[in-house]
Amino acid sequence: MIYAGILAGGVGSRMTGATVPKQFFPIGGKPILVHTAEKFLMCDKFQKIYIAVVGGYLDLAQSMIDEYIDKSLAARISVIEGGGDRSGSILKVIERIYEDGGDEKSILVSHDSVRPFVNLAALEENIRLISGGCCDCAGTAVPSIDTVFEIDKGGFVTSIPDRSRLCNAQTPQTFTVGEFLECYGRLSPADKAALTDACAVFLRCGKRVLTAKGSSDNIKITTPFDMKLAESILNESSNFHGFSDI
Amino acid sequence: MIYAGILAGGVGSRMTGATVPKQFFPIGGKPILVHTAEKFLMCDKFQKIYIAVVGGYLDLAQSMIDEYIDKSLAARISVIEGGGDRSGSILKVIERIYEDGGDEKSILVSHDSVRPFVNLAALEENIRLISGGCCDCAGTAVPSIDTVFEIDKGGFVTSIPDRSRLCNAQTPQTFTVGEFLECYGRLSPADKAALTDACAVFLRCGKRVLTAKGSSDNIKITTPFDMKLAESILNESSNFHGFSDI
Repeated sequence: MIYAGILAGGVGSRMTGATVPKQFFPIGGKPILVHTAEKFLMCDKFQKIYIAVVGGYLDLAQSMIDEYIDKSLAARISVIEGGGDRSGSILKVIERIYEDGGDEKSILVSHDSVRPFVNLAALEENIRLISGGCCDCAGTAVPSIDTVFEIDKGGFVTSIPDRSRLCNAQTPQTFTVGEFLECYGRLSPADKAALTDACAVFLRCGKRVLTAKGSSDNIKITTPFDMKLAESILNESSNFHGFSDI
Repeated sequence: MIYAGILAGGVGSRMTGATVPKQFFPIGGKPILVHTAEKFLMCDKFQKIYIAVVGGYLDLAQSMIDEYIDKSLAARISVIEGGGDRSGSILKVIERIYEDGGDEKSILVSHDSVRPFVNLAALEENIRLISGGCCDCAGTAVPSIDTVFEIDKGGFVTSIPDRSRLCNAQTPQTFTVGEFLECYGRLSPADKAALTDACAVFLRCGKRVLTAKGSSDNIKITTPFDMKLAESILNESSNFHGFSDI
């Protein structure tokens, strides 16, 4: 069985002047979180879509789902309390998957709540890569456009990695819940704190992490600038048929 | 003496349906190249501002400068023919610097013509870092926001570099012309073809490359999406006082 976990645990420390976490901000008159949930509802493969929310905001998240999403569709969504960090929220989602009848072979498609422009193709490729067994974790990514500098603490450039071998990570990141539990359980406390990314958890344990094709509009809304960008993507979306592949 | 070299040699292969190179596209009713030149005119430290243009577009570039920039200011600008690649254009600019009375100690602030939102602070920090002798090449950069994957040819993730040590390179990139000639002259033909970035040329020769503080709005306009983003930055700029530092 296949489940979705929308991770909405962030408190948005980069969004200056924020009164609520950024996933609850509206773009195009609708909360970001709702846009994201709607994208997952477009995919009929999910048994259940969990939204793991930072403590204290469960009622707000639930009320937004109730307000903006049709009742018949919203039945597939469960708002649950997330964990202290990203992996913690994944663990909470996995707990619920088991409670709801899933097992270790269940596939979890995990996603940032603040990436509302994820597309159906990415969701389906993530699922396909894990269902097909060609990797242990699928991580959505796009080729890096910018030249990347590796720097030391003084700001001096120590190397310039070959850009053709670099990707910028996005989400979804997808895996079977049993394998996540196994890998996470093997991490030291220091690694648990440092590796905030499911792909990093799998890679640390020597597992095969394969990239799935992301898109340049699958942005993570983190700053006020990103909010403006998101509005501009939404405004264009009516006569907009995807970004050119780079 | 300090010179600017705006590198406008690209032909914009990423801009689908383009009839002219992207640096000549208008944003906010004015060619990108003109926006960029205006930023450099705001800095009074430049003896001369060279714009190195791809062959065949010299007249177009010159006519744009004549049309949009006041004659008294435009006197500081020289439109010249660029080289076959980025380093080739830098070499052409250096040739002109020598012709115009510069020497090997002359500082060249090189910049992508399609980064029209460069700010005065970045130009001045670039100049200061090279004038002060604390490095051989200054490269403007911003901290990487996205997690970066290193991948193999099959798309499998081979490593996830520590993000706190990664920067995304922008321009300006700044150096003395004598040092650039010395370093470039030492490169093998293969390196000359591969290292399209002045910072990469200096690093390859074991020189000290230091990062200068860029800004998130100093975007490189490469795709139709970037054009929309640029328009949105321009529209906001009247009540916009810079992006939050990340």
